[in-house]
Amino acid sequence: MKVDVLTLFPEMMDGVFRSSILGKAQEKGIVSLNAVNFRDYSGNKHGTVDDTPYGGGGGMVLKPDPIFAAVEDLLSRSSAAPRVILMCPQGETFTQQKAEELSSADHLIFICGHYEGYDERIREHLVTDELSIGDYVLTGGELPAMVVIDSVVRLLPGVLGNETSAVTDSFSTGLLEYPHYTRPAEFRGWKVPDILLSGHHANIELWRREQALKRTLERRPDLLDKVELTDQDCKVIKRLKQQDNGC
Amino acid sequence: MKVDVLTLFPEMMDGVFRSSILGKAQEKGIVSLNAVNFRDYSGNKHGTVDDTPYGGGGGMVLKPDPIFAAVEDLLSRSSAAPRVILMCPQGETFTQQKAEELSSADHLIFICGHYEGYDERIREHLVTDELSIGDYVLTGGELPAMVVIDSVVRLLPGVLGNETSAVTDSFSTGLLEYPHYTRPAEFRGWKVPDILLSGHHANIELWRREQALKRTLERRPDLLDKVELTDQDCKVIKRLKQQDNGC
Repeated sequence: MKVDVLTLFPEMMDGVFRSSILGKAQEKGIVSLNAVNFRDYSGNKHGTVDDTPYGGGGGMVLKPDPIFAAVEDLLSRSSAAPRVILMCPQGETFTQQKAEELSSADHLIFICGHYEGYDERIREHLVTDELSIGDYVLTGGELPAMVVIDSVVRLLPGVLGNETSAVTDSFSTGLLEYPHYTRPAEFRGWKVPDILLSGHHANIELWRREQALKRTLERRPDLLDKVELTDQDCKVIKRLKQQDNGC
Repeated sequence: MKVDVLTLFPEMMDGVFRSSILGKAQEKGIVSLNAVNFRDYSGNKHGTVDDTPYGGGGGMVLKPDPIFAAVEDLLSRSSAAPRVILMCPQGETFTQQKAEELSSADHLIFICGHYEGYDERIREHLVTDELSIGDYVLTGGELPAMVVIDSVVRLLPGVLGNETSAVTDSFSTGLLEYPHYTRPAEFRGWKVPDILLSGHHANIELWRREQALKRTLERRPDLLDKVELTDQDCKVIKRLKQQDNGC
């Protein structure tokens, strides 16, 4: 997979692209990550990429020309049909499902604004996707793009080793994770639950499933609607709800 | 404000902490951003910070000792009562409201796991907040912590200049933003809407409000429930819904 990030702050990407999973995925040749400063496509000697908005008001707006020119230059060198993704608060809320969808593409191009609005013609005539990572205000699209890239690249075959893919699996149940414990068995008087030291694997599995259901019910009941629950799960949930009501 | 980030990958923070708003906020002395490698608190010469889970299963679990030691060392040097924030998928979903709440704290400590689970005793006895930035799987808590830090720091007085605070204001309406346009007035045959060139400010304001309502209605109708709408807004929405139904 080839990933290009159009940004005015390419140096923001350095540490993240070089570290951990993203660094290793590049070393293995599974992905190529590239930050492109679209100021290089401004077409004027001052490197101007923004201008005041038509109709007045505060703030600046990114001009269409440099971003079209940068994307088209990348397209001309791409054999695949890239997804051109605008990171913006107006976009579709990013989810794991979208990460899986994007992981099948050969080429992703991210457009990251910073402080500023985008000229609407970029949205209408250049991009294939608009994404937001959540309902909060950020300074630019760079961190959101890195979030999307991390979640997508870790899904590519060969990127994760065995020890890490196990963690992914526990998410794929659609429930929040059950509590984890490791050594010491007692830390400052706080003990690991006896069941986990019992060696009885069937009971441990039951306990973990119940804890995952309990945590999801307490914190994110909305997720339960999207999960396939067994009869046993439903019994557990019914019991947990009764306990909660003091029955 | 003082911000400490506990991580095994401090180099991931470099580019982001030095750039843009976060870099400037530090230069102005408004915030101090510090990445702490909690491997330095492992208490053993191998620097071990994780171990296998009690009860079996794949993956590794972050031990309680190094993280308690690192947080307590930071606490011993802090005059404020810090928020100790665990970045994890089980956490409360981060929102702009939470960013505003955190922006009033004097000291934030973020705990970032990487690949691994946290020993439950960290969750139960050390942290004040658990946060998730959205429903997608990431490799570690570092990018989410940077997202939270960016959204919080930009709210601190003196961080944003005038041109950028205007952008924030347009979000604070609770609606998605109206379309922006800048020069050229015609780009590849795609024209800026006439109204924006009319110079009639009252009409421009009406058009922009209608466009913001339209975009929110189309893309994020859930946001409309949380916004204070005027009588005029309601009329516009009613009309937009009728158009949509072909009435």
